Amino acid sequence: MESIGIVAPQLMHFTEPLALQSGAALAGYDLMVETYGTLNAARSNAVLVCHALNASHHVAGVYAGEPKNVGWWDNMVGPGKPLDTNRFFVIGVNNLGSCFGSTGPMSLDPATGKPYGARFPVVTVEDWVNAQARLADAFGIERFAAVMGGSLGGMQALAWSLMYPDRIGHCIVVASTPKLSAQNIAFNEVARSAILSDPDFHGGDYYAHGVKPKRGLRVARMIGHITYLSDDDMATKFGRALRRPGGDGLDDDYHFSFDVEFEVESYLRYQGDKFADYFDANTYLLITRALDYFDPAKAFDGDLTAALAHSRAQYLIASFTTDWRFAPTRSRELVKALLDHKRRVTYAEIDAPHGHDAFLLDDARYHNVVRAYYERIAEEVRA
Amino acid sequence: MESIGIVAPQLMHFTEPLALQSGAALAGYDLMVETYGTLNAARSNAVLVCHALNASHHVAGVYAGEPKNVGWWDNMVGPGKPLDTNRFFVIGVNNLGSCFGSTGPMSLDPATGKPYGARFPVVTVEDWVNAQARLADAFGIERFAAVMGGSLGGMQALAWSLMYPDRIGHCIVVASTPKLSAQNIAFNEVARSAILSDPDFHGGDYYAHGVKPKRGLRVARMIGHITYLSDDDMATKFGRALRRPGGDGLDDDYHFSFDVEFEVESYLRYQGDKFADYFDANTYLLITRALDYFDPAKAFDGDLTAALAHSRAQYLIASFTTDWRFAPTRSRELVKALLDHKRRVTYAEIDAPHGHDAFLLDDARYHNVVRAYYERIAEEVRA
Repeated sequence: MESIGIVAPQLMHFTEPLALQSGAALAGYDLMVETYGTLNAARSNAVLVCHALNASHHVAGVYAGEPKNVGWWDNMVGPGKPLDTNRFFVIGVNNLGSCFGSTGPMSLDPATGKPYGARFPVVTVEDWVNAQARLADAFGIERFAAVMGGSLGGMQALAWSLMYPDRIGHCIVVASTPKLSAQNIAFNEVARSAILSDPDFHGGDYYAHGVKPKRGLRVARMIGHITYLSDDDMATKFGRALRRPGGDGLDDDYHFSFDVEFEVESYLRYQGDKFADYFDANTYLLITRALDYFDPAKAFDGDLTAALAHSRAQYLIASFTTDWRFAPTRSRELVKALLDHKRRVTYAEIDAPHGHDAFLLDDARYHNVVRAYYERIAEEVRA
Repeated sequence: MESIGIVAPQLMHFTEPLALQSGAALAGYDLMVETYGTLNAARSNAVLVCHALNASHHVAGVYAGEPKNVGWWDNMVGPGKPLDTNRFFVIGVNNLGSCFGSTGPMSLDPATGKPYGARFPVVTVEDWVNAQARLADAFGIERFAAVMGGSLGGMQALAWSLMYPDRIGHCIVVASTPKLSAQNIAFNEVARSAILSDPDFHGGDYYAHGVKPKRGLRVARMIGHITYLSDDDMATKFGRALRRPGGDGLDDDYHFSFDVEFEVESYLRYQGDKFADYFDANTYLLITRALDYFDPAKAFDGDLTAALAHSRAQYLIASFTTDWRFAPTRSRELVKALLDHKRRVTYAEIDAPHGHDAFLLDDARYHNVVRAYYERIAEEVRA
């Protein structure tokens, strides 16, 4: 399957103030955006792809001169791929508060001329959806053929179907949940505590100190990684294999130290260090908080069925058997609440070994479900 | 059920050097010990209780003037309790490297006159068992009626049955595993990373700096706590309940901050702070490493059945359905390997909602199993 090839992001500026759920507002803001494929004359073939914690607008393709910088869902989005850019006009957008070009804590606050830092307002899934709706306006898109996302991205898709029921045809929610559990929040809180207690955090204003709270970010990412993989997947990938000290090879014996001893330690440290280099700590706080807060049933005394009463989209919900972060039972809750309203719901529970990460991987059974679903949408768009 | 009442620890000194698995040795060492009940004339009614990560020799009873300082397994050990101190002589011992009185990183290294700190040698489950065997010698106990422990304590009991098969009648292994999985090691590694990267750690020699790496310990404990509770248990205890800022009560609305917002955050922070106050960071590193290293099958190419060939004890293995740290499947592996040798094994898989912590809780079905098992041992002791 060919990739979409070289793509380029564009920065779009919005001048109308955006009122946020917290009561705060952004006077103006930028969104970093990528698009793939061509918007048809009827503007009816647009699909919005929403990103999860650490991803961005760069959904598919590569940048000129950066052949390794492949979009995070390149196996899903492209010519002939499940979300086929020969048929659909696909938009990727970096969310507000993130650190890949859209307005966020690293941006200059026009009121002070300094980075927002800790003064960047708390943003929610609903705030992102409002900003995405304005982005749709800017493209002249009245209604998305589909809004799609995995994990936190799936929450945005779900929120679209509740906040803008007239503006979304299909809602595709992969490896997600209608709300975090106490355990999910607990993992986020530990990650945030690692960042908040890093002396280099400086109350969120570390930019002014020329440092980054890398130690905290590193621990935060290590915790995250454990929850993205399944126990079995970790056992298969790493087991109890031992690593040679300071070297690349494997070893047979213990070395009785706190340095890297097991393969899995080496993997986690590598992932943690890499993440601490490229990701922004304030963004990590903001995005995990948006995850915590998402709970459309909250305004309905926890009644998810009641929360979905005004939805009009059709739904594809997909979950993965070994995902213990957002287990299939969480998707089934959503399916059940939608069926209470006799909504058209396709549900796929995919037997996959890779835990939560499965939503990003190239699995034929999973991709075939998504492909078939988009073929149905394509027929509607043509009709 | 009455408690055993007021107890007192005793410090026992050992002068014979102890060779450790790492190749290092301790020239001499102290063990902090508590005993309950009376050793019979035949010295045949002794039970050794082994502790897990953060516990100690203080298994049961209270200290004079400290009515709230109750032993960690007081619901299990005492007069008329499942491990009945009217029948058995019970020993609790703080393990080497721990921070409750036995020789560990906080102790003065006789070679330098300063705390061992980072120079305290890495210790293993097998090292602890060797030290415990000398403790048995000091009490004139040739053979324990039983060695018992939960979690890491269960590993010590299992190791006893392999290292000293003639010196243990019954081996009682609760909520444990014959080895850590990659995921288990990963959680330990994240916790250690939080400690090792705390600027107050000073390479393990923080005692000399008059500080403690409390931030790291706090995060380490928060991570640990998530793995001790089940997802369902957390949902029942905390759910998504919100806490009033700065207050004790509950609240209905979000406050859009990174302060405590959810009940579960308040709980974790409290547990983390409390732990960081009383526990030693070097001990945390040492004990989690001992957990990682434990793998009696390692010397047999991973063949657990082969590793158990020389065991002669009878076994009680117990696990808890919602324990995802050391799930029932891990106990069943052990049962299977013992049955391969036609060993006498009693296995109880207890349907309990409280995750790994269940082994510490007063659950009638669990305690009845242990009680019945000890009644059998008591009959053998009398015979």
